[in-house]
Amino acid sequence: MKMIINEPLPGNAECADSLKNVLDALYVLSGKWKLALILCLVQSPKRFNEIQHAVTGISAKILAKELKDLELNDFIKRNVYPTTPVSIIYEATEYSQTLKNVMGELSAWGQQHREKVKQSMRKQS
Amino acid sequence: MKMIINEPLPGNAECADSLKNVLDALYVLSGKWKLALILCLVQSPKRFNEIQHAVTGISAKILAKELKDLELNDFIKRNVYPTTPVSIIYEATEYSQTLKNVMGELSAWGQQHREKVKQSMRKQS
Repeated sequence: MKMIINEPLPGNAECADSLKNVLDALYVLSGKWKLALILCLVQSPKRFNEIQHAVTGISAKILAKELKDLELNDFIKRNVYPTTPVSIIYEATEYSQTLKNVMGELSAWGQQHREKVKQSMRKQS
Repeated sequence: MKMIINEPLPGNAECADSLKNVLDALYVLSGKWKLALILCLVQSPKRFNEIQHAVTGISAKILAKELKDLELNDFIKRNVYPTTPVSIIYEATEYSQTLKNVMGELSAWGQQHREKVKQSMRKQS
């Protein structure tokens, strides 16, 4: 057993590379909300309250913090319009669009995962 | 502006569905490490120390907690072999394999993101 595991695997460098890439991606995207918030704003620009309504379960405090983080990392833009009272509209940047494939795959997996959870709950009951 | 945003968008239900899927996925996968740990073990089964070595920056305490979480959620298996001293080998379950596309897209994006960060650092210096 020891021998097999300690042997250098073919394509080990490639494995290390993809692991490094995933770690880099998670460094900016990790957390329970970031990708969902980006997806929410890629779908359409929204006001703070509209985002909170769409992303079920997020508190106003966390949402404010996450939006600030996302703005700092160039994923979203905060537009202030001089209406009375002022309108503040959040929108996804072009850079957020580069995450479309990631969000697509995550959405497909999430749907499949929900089915699996439902099935195992049925089995238990 | 107000009018456009409040109008129901075509395909809004679809948008809400994919948002819900992503939220469900992030519910089990969120955090800075989970997807990287799954990828690390999908590549090959490993001992605790080997995982810590491969996933740069994770502390032993956090790694132990994350491995327990992943085991509970059926993403990894902890195998104990009665050698002296006992060998404990972590391996990815079949269910982890369903995340291959997600990890592939995340890896591709992470690589692209690192290039972007490098470029903007070059511009600043």
